[in-house]
Amino acid sequence: MITISEYLIKRLAEVGCTDIFGVPGDYNLPFFDVLSASDSKWIGCANELNAGYAADGYARKRGFGAILTTYGVGELSAINAIAGSFTENVPVLKIVGAPATALVARGAIVHHSLAQGQFDTFENCFKNVTVYAATVTRENAAFHIDAAIEKAFAEKRPAYISIPVDLFSAEIAEPECPLVLDWTPGSTDVSSIVELLAKAERPVIFPGFALKRYAGLVAKVEALVDKLNLPFASFLMSKGVLNEAHPNNLGIYFHNAGSDTAQQYIENSDCVIFLGEKISDGPSNKFQAKIPYDKTVVVTSEDFNLPAVVDALLELDLHFDAEFTHVEAAPIKTEFSDAPLTVEGFQKMVYDFTRAGDNLSLETGTTSFGLSVDPQRAGVNYSMQIIWGAIGYSLPATLGGAIAAPDERHLLIIGDGSFQLTFNDLGLITRQGLKPIIFVVDNDGYTIERAIHGPEEEFNDIARWNYAAIPAALGVAADVHEATSEAELAKVLVDVSAAADRAHFVVVKTDKFDYPNTLKRFTGK
Amino acid sequence: MITISEYLIKRLAEVGCTDIFGVPGDYNLPFFDVLSASDSKWIGCANELNAGYAADGYARKRGFGAILTTYGVGELSAINAIAGSFTENVPVLKIVGAPATALVARGAIVHHSLAQGQFDTFENCFKNVTVYAATVTRENAAFHIDAAIEKAFAEKRPAYISIPVDLFSAEIAEPECPLVLDWTPGSTDVSSIVELLAKAERPVIFPGFALKRYAGLVAKVEALVDKLNLPFASFLMSKGVLNEAHPNNLGIYFHNAGSDTAQQYIENSDCVIFLGEKISDGPSNKFQAKIPYDKTVVVTSEDFNLPAVVDALLELDLHFDAEFTHVEAAPIKTEFSDAPLTVEGFQKMVYDFTRAGDNLSLETGTTSFGLSVDPQRAGVNYSMQIIWGAIGYSLPATLGGAIAAPDERHLLIIGDGSFQLTFNDLGLITRQGLKPIIFVVDNDGYTIERAIHGPEEEFNDIARWNYAAIPAALGVAADVHEATSEAELAKVLVDVSAAADRAHFVVVKTDKFDYPNTLKRFTGK
Repeated sequence: MITISEYLIKRLAEVGCTDIFGVPGDYNLPFFDVLSASDSKWIGCANELNAGYAADGYARKRGFGAILTTYGVGELSAINAIAGSFTENVPVLKIVGAPATALVARGAIVHHSLAQGQFDTFENCFKNVTVYAATVTRENAAFHIDAAIEKAFAEKRPAYISIPVDLFSAEIAEPECPLVLDWTPGSTDVSSIVELLAKAERPVIFPGFALKRYAGLVAKVEALVDKLNLPFASFLMSKGVLNEAHPNNLGIYFHNAGSDTAQQYIENSDCVIFLGEKISDGPSNKFQAKIPYDKTVVVTSEDFNLPAVVDALLELDLHFDAEFTHVEAAPIKTEFSDAPLTVEGFQKMVYDFTRAGDNLSLETGTTSFGLSVDPQRAGVNYSMQIIWGAIGYSLPATLGGAIAAPDERHLLIIGDGSFQLTFNDLGLITRQGLKPIIFVVDNDGYTIERAIHGPEEEFNDIARWNYAAIPAALGVAADVHEATSEAELAKVLVDVSAAADRAHFVVVKTDKFDYPNTLKRFTGK
Repeated sequence: MITISEYLIKRLAEVGCTDIFGVPGDYNLPFFDVLSASDSKWIGCANELNAGYAADGYARKRGFGAILTTYGVGELSAINAIAGSFTENVPVLKIVGAPATALVARGAIVHHSLAQGQFDTFENCFKNVTVYAATVTRENAAFHIDAAIEKAFAEKRPAYISIPVDLFSAEIAEPECPLVLDWTPGSTDVSSIVELLAKAERPVIFPGFALKRYAGLVAKVEALVDKLNLPFASFLMSKGVLNEAHPNNLGIYFHNAGSDTAQQYIENSDCVIFLGEKISDGPSNKFQAKIPYDKTVVVTSEDFNLPAVVDALLELDLHFDAEFTHVEAAPIKTEFSDAPLTVEGFQKMVYDFTRAGDNLSLETGTTSFGLSVDPQRAGVNYSMQIIWGAIGYSLPATLGGAIAAPDERHLLIIGDGSFQLTFNDLGLITRQGLKPIIFVVDNDGYTIERAIHGPEEEFNDIARWNYAAIPAALGVAADVHEATSEAELAKVLVDVSAAADRAHFVVVKTDKFDYPNTLKRFTGK
């Protein structure tokens, strides 16, 4: 016999999740007695939303994430993060510590509830944004925990388990066999894709962000590209899913705001295959993209069994020789001006600073919409949340990713407006011994919104902070740097490289009306 | 004809709500063109949860609050605040800017959605925590806006209105008549109360927090107490609803963790009337309270028309002469030790520092559970969120209250653990010219949880911050003070009084195992 808490920790470890993010509360405190005695680790966050973002960032690296909060106040604070995981196909288990079985049975009015003696309200909210949601009893706890983790893992989406506080220490039977993790739902029928490919002369595939959710699948798609000699392009959000330096890379397709090579080829293609990708308003340039829809198949992870589809395509005996222009990686910048830094000049210097194997997170906003449409350094793992697009997501997510893969380098570019939402958890750097390199773009407000509506309006202003003073105030052990020109930034980057064993916090000042070129083309400004 | 935005702003002003809290987003930007031209004001917050808390704090002072966010990411980030408003009977309108009508009609995959071409998900979540929820069209916008505000005002609970981005500027007819605000739902039948009162020899009433939601109702209940010579007591969360210096005050009832006078009287009473109060686990000391339930009527704002009930009771020709001990206000402290500050000594000094008309917010945790059970200064408006109990709530709520009543003094006591969740919005102080007096208790973690479970455990630790450095880092114009002893705090309070035209930020250090007496009695430690 083992406790329900041990059972849960054990099952999470089976999917590679050995760190649990969250905030303690009196409905979940008994869980910690078991967690501290286990091989898994508690990552206490400043608030629940941040914990949800961090668990999502962790899951993107590790394959599965988990967040524990208390009932009501805790879980609702995190629901936005869970909805983001749902939209962007990230498997995260949301664990809740709930009121005691006996109090629920008699409909008591307890704290953190709606004070109506009714207890399914929050689970009902979560049912909207998860693939599985249940409140367990001692009798069905093992069943629900297994089902929630298996379904989340298979569908690459979040699940929800609520555990009454009296059950964390209740004993149940040990699991008899491992979780079933080799099952993937969705169609394996590739006939529509094969039919289109068989007739194609100018085929192209879009290797999408969802491919990264399946262990080993990106490598298989790269093999597919090689075997069939398929040109490929990416939406902004899927930059770098395949190695950007691959000779078949056409760059970022963003209609007339992206790579000209990609646009010219794709809008005249006779076979477009989206693999693990979604066509949403942002990356499709507000649906203006002239994708030849009658010759397009969208293979999402919701409708298809992506690994089976890729395996089937790898069996095809096809080889294309479409003419296309290989897009060279953008040349490394070597001259650095003393003029005020622009967001484009700054971002280019960060791309050049990366190396293969690095993780570069980009916040939704000027940063991700200003992402270069040209290939940059090879082998960089870009990460952003473009469809859900919750501002502030990237900071806790980057730290979660750093906890998941402590031996890799983790860089983040975040704007001041987004930073103000979630910087509370910078403290994780010191508490968890992380060494991220964080670039905060101080451009005095919501610049992406200025580009969309009301450039000079007060509602796009934010409180003026002294960003360089933040790490010390929050007790964060990080080297702090500031740069207002390329020349200054070049020196900072030398210093950052020289102190690889430290966390770095780089404040970069750009003008509030400095819109990167891609954003200008996207908004027509 | 006026725009839907103008219509909404006009209707909110009718319920006294002339400040709208929130975070802009591309789905709500057109609203701001109208708002900037109106007499109402935009209060931009650092994040949506804080905006929801601030709107709740504003509504507690002003009678009605409003928060505007963008779709999906914005609204879900605020849902915890709205659920708190629901539980604690606070009328707040949650306004959402949503995807354009045409995109919704064709089920497009848009940003900030679940990418399923389905648009009612978030409204469905909000239906669980509001009394009214609707997404408007041009045709029904006036109807839904009126109904949402009227219902929220009548039931003292939040409502939800979602407005597609293309409709903010759409024109509709001006309202023909004012909102219907003189209707209150619930029973007006006072027979059960009258029956109990008529036989009573030792009656007592609990004037509850919900009385404060109705303009003028507290004064009527005070008149009722005077006319019938009724003794009264309060749950912790309703401290000071009636003037604590009133001769009929028995103090705070908290079973054996509260005022002995209250306990002795109430547990032997033959008529207990809860007026606008709920019996939940916290204030009832985990339901151990020995309230004589067979001689008790609970008059909640959900089941009864509170104003009508009070009016009916005022008609009664009854006068009691029960014997009870009047609880004197605690004497003002005049000697200040040099020993390390205790949370009790510190809180007592803050109570003594207050004066009639002040607002004193207490954060959920050691602060509110350590609130003195004896009467303190007369006429202080205490504010706390005990049933919902979301940590971090009090800081934005205090600032929201300060915006609602700028001529009053607003004090806040908040612990470090709670402060870390929501301090992002300290920037409102400078942006809105506020002058709160904020006491941050630096006691190295979640002390209330240490008292409950795991005093020495790591999960009750938080990141170590340098609190005194926070205001400068966040660009907040506030005088910063620190105190580690009563003597130091006494000097600080003199300085605070001398600079009444400034915001003050006072960092108070207490020991991490320093549990106030009430909390010790509550947790049995």
